[in-house]
Amino acid sequence: MRMAELSRRTGVPVPTIKYYLREGLLLPGERTSPNQAIYDETHIRRLRMIRALTEVGGLSIAKVRDVLDAVDSPEIPFEVLGTVQHSIEPPSGGTGSEYWETARERVAKLLLDRGWRANIDGPPAKTLIAALASLYELGREDLAGLLERYAPAAEKIAEFDVAAVTRDRGIEDTIEGVVIGTVLGDVMLGALRRLAHQHATAKALGLPENYDYEKGSGGEHE
Amino acid sequence: MRMAELSRRTGVPVPTIKYYLREGLLLPGERTSPNQAIYDETHIRRLRMIRALTEVGGLSIAKVRDVLDAVDSPEIPFEVLGTVQHSIEPPSGGTGSEYWETARERVAKLLLDRGWRANIDGPPAKTLIAALASLYELGREDLAGLLERYAPAAEKIAEFDVAAVTRDRGIEDTIEGVVIGTVLGDVMLGALRRLAHQHATAKALGLPENYDYEKGSGGEHE
Repeated sequence: MRMAELSRRTGVPVPTIKYYLREGLLLPGERTSPNQAIYDETHIRRLRMIRALTEVGGLSIAKVRDVLDAVDSPEIPFEVLGTVQHSIEPPSGGTGSEYWETARERVAKLLLDRGWRANIDGPPAKTLIAALASLYELGREDLAGLLERYAPAAEKIAEFDVAAVTRDRGIEDTIEGVVIGTVLGDVMLGALRRLAHQHATAKALGLPENYDYEKGSGGEHE
Repeated sequence: MRMAELSRRTGVPVPTIKYYLREGLLLPGERTSPNQAIYDETHIRRLRMIRALTEVGGLSIAKVRDVLDAVDSPEIPFEVLGTVQHSIEPPSGGTGSEYWETARERVAKLLLDRGWRANIDGPPAKTLIAALASLYELGREDLAGLLERYAPAAEKIAEFDVAAVTRDRGIEDTIEGVVIGTVLGDVMLGALRRLAHQHATAKALGLPENYDYEKGSGGEHE
């Protein structure tokens, strides 16, 4: 198909498609003349993936490129996981914090206690240490204590994730699943947690069943 | 204390403090002369909070201002939760997706099945619907199926969260806890999930115990 049809079928505007081509996020189509190229289903799929990672996953174009490079290079899924984690993880602030070492020791102990084979110097561990150090600095030991409570839930979730991406799938689908699952899974989990906060808070405060969340008061009728 | 000491004690550079003052994130100190003001412990605390929300939580200055406005206005914790959720939630793309309605129905059913009192039209629900619609568009029904598997874990986590911020705390600490817990809790949970991915993947692939995650191969010695 021509670029116009590619745009129509994906809803991505032509100038945006051209931008992705220039940035190397989208592979060039097959050239049929000096000014024309044709595109196929792989381009549609790739455009949908770029949109999912940017619009829903909130990744920058630079990060999407890193992630897609990992998808395109022939690595085993475990290494793709590492590359994806390196690419999507925001730089963790606070490495200079006076609480960094204390926080790092607590995370190291958690990995040991749970028997997780995970890298204490990798990007996710650094993010976790930064968050913990920040809670210490704010004097919120109560919230830092959530670490050990979250861990079993995270472990179960990760098992669901790995089972989902490896089940009856070819290697390409698995690799794509690692990327999409890592990014969109985080979005889903965070949103579910915040939805559950609404419920748990309403329950804890004993708000009436007909409490209007938007208006901040109970409705007039039950 | 003077601004120089405020800077020294928090590690936030003076120009950054001045920027936060101009932007209204930090309340002015008590003026002692036309060119001087003194600051107290509340300013230290506020600067630490701004740093946690921006550097670790990844929020923009505009979002931090919205969140802090919620902290500063005398609302009940449940309403602060709503304001914080409105402020931190990224705009969810994909409302025009052909899968939006299908995704929305699935989220509505989930809320009903779990008996969650949560707002299907609020920001977290919209984020969740957008992620789900995106998975449908990518043909990843397998990953969409994680929704119902994540939900019980999210529910348990939210109960831990609410218990932590309401336990033996005054109203101000509770409100601050809602803000910090919502933002840094998401960071912790996401990082834990990605750490657990390393472990779950190594286990699923049967990688050797001495597999070197960084180098992509087993070490030479056990």
